[in-house]
Amino acid sequence: MSTVLVTGSSRGLGLELVKQLSSRTTKADLVIAAARKCSPALDEVIANAGGRVLFVPLDISDLANITRSVEMVKSALDQRSLDILINCAGVHSETQGRVALMSDLEYQLSVNVTGAHNMIRSFLTLMEGGEVKKIINISTAYASMTRAAEVSYAPCPAYKISKAALNALTVQYAMSYQDKGFVFLAVSPGWLQTDMGGGNADLTVEEGANAVLDVVMSAGPECNGHFKNIHVPGWKGYDGQEIPW
Amino acid sequence: MSTVLVTGSSRGLGLELVKQLSSRTTKADLVIAAARKCSPALDEVIANAGGRVLFVPLDISDLANITRSVEMVKSALDQRSLDILINCAGVHSETQGRVALMSDLEYQLSVNVTGAHNMIRSFLTLMEGGEVKKIINISTAYASMTRAAEVSYAPCPAYKISKAALNALTVQYAMSYQDKGFVFLAVSPGWLQTDMGGGNADLTVEEGANAVLDVVMSAGPECNGHFKNIHVPGWKGYDGQEIPW
Repeated sequence: MSTVLVTGSSRGLGLELVKQLSSRTTKADLVIAAARKCSPALDEVIANAGGRVLFVPLDISDLANITRSVEMVKSALDQRSLDILINCAGVHSETQGRVALMSDLEYQLSVNVTGAHNMIRSFLTLMEGGEVKKIINISTAYASMTRAAEVSYAPCPAYKISKAALNALTVQYAMSYQDKGFVFLAVSPGWLQTDMGGGNADLTVEEGANAVLDVVMSAGPECNGHFKNIHVPGWKGYDGQEIPW
Repeated sequence: MSTVLVTGSSRGLGLELVKQLSSRTTKADLVIAAARKCSPALDEVIANAGGRVLFVPLDISDLANITRSVEMVKSALDQRSLDILINCAGVHSETQGRVALMSDLEYQLSVNVTGAHNMIRSFLTLMEGGEVKKIINISTAYASMTRAAEVSYAPCPAYKISKAALNALTVQYAMSYQDKGFVFLAVSPGWLQTDMGGGNADLTVEEGANAVLDVVMSAGPECNGHFKNIHVPGWKGYDGQEIPW
């Protein structure tokens, strides 16, 4: 593999994806770590990566900002194509009480859905000439309408709805760009011990990121437009299968 | 049945729903026909309805406007509860070319998803005391991610994505208000000969509205949170079954 862009990489899953991409047995040649701001943890990853990781400022909620970042990434790629785009940046919130009290649906849709759309459409031109052409949207099993009753305890309706819409966006892109060799995936990274997931979560962020990268690297054209679970041996809930919409 | 509010009722499916609700064998006692503006066609329905239909101005894209309409509807109900809310208002657009050219996703999400959310949360208090408590979100079979490939010919990705998100909203409300006796449904009205559907559509607007009302009236608690197809005898595609997400 060669060139990868990860959004939301200043912390949590995005940060760990960057770290592992720069240190896996099959290393990425170049990892663009995009985030609104760099962080001490990302600085450390960059310092230890021997020039394989570059930070690019990026706010996915602002199309003009995305457009500027495309130019920076293009310059960093130095004639190469971008092989993999991992849309990890997103927002999450909780609603205390019933769904009528949900006050941030528009904002969550704007960042998690329109933000991902603006990322994809802005970076497609840097990817079209490549061999790999994978675009990964980090989703959540909470987005499954089929399994909604199983996770009704989680008080984050706006997040669930926005990620269901992100899945629908993934499907539309998958159909539209299949003939150009793109592979679009929605991936549920599992419940991870990040700031978002909290300390009681199932998996360490290292386990989650490793499992996500396994999905990303093994995904072929047959997976285009699918919603994939991670596979973590020993966890019934992380079976590596498709998650029903 | 008794009191029903229909949004988007100045034309198309919404108008026909109002007309049939006021003239069915089991008539509604009061139909609130909500729309941004009244129309000559709606005026005619009102004139022929013997006082059973009232127009209320309502722009679902504006929460303050919705709040004002709640007061008007409350006054029209005169101590009665609102029994059925049919969220029919929405926007539709086409994208010529690939999905990257989709330029109105945020707008479609705002009207079709956040607009429906603002309607529901604003009118819930007028419904809680009633016996019926049905909230119907007019969706589309195009929203099905499972069947997306079958309708990939339809160049309306933003509409499809927004209606998938509306379905997810329906599921969240269904779970949140089940214990209060509410029934939330997403209903696909079929491809109708409206301004949106065009003259080559499968069904007349009369057939579509009649079939939607059959679904609405027969839906019990067992349907809460479901995505229902209409049933039109002779049409394989309108089998009255659940549509997969």
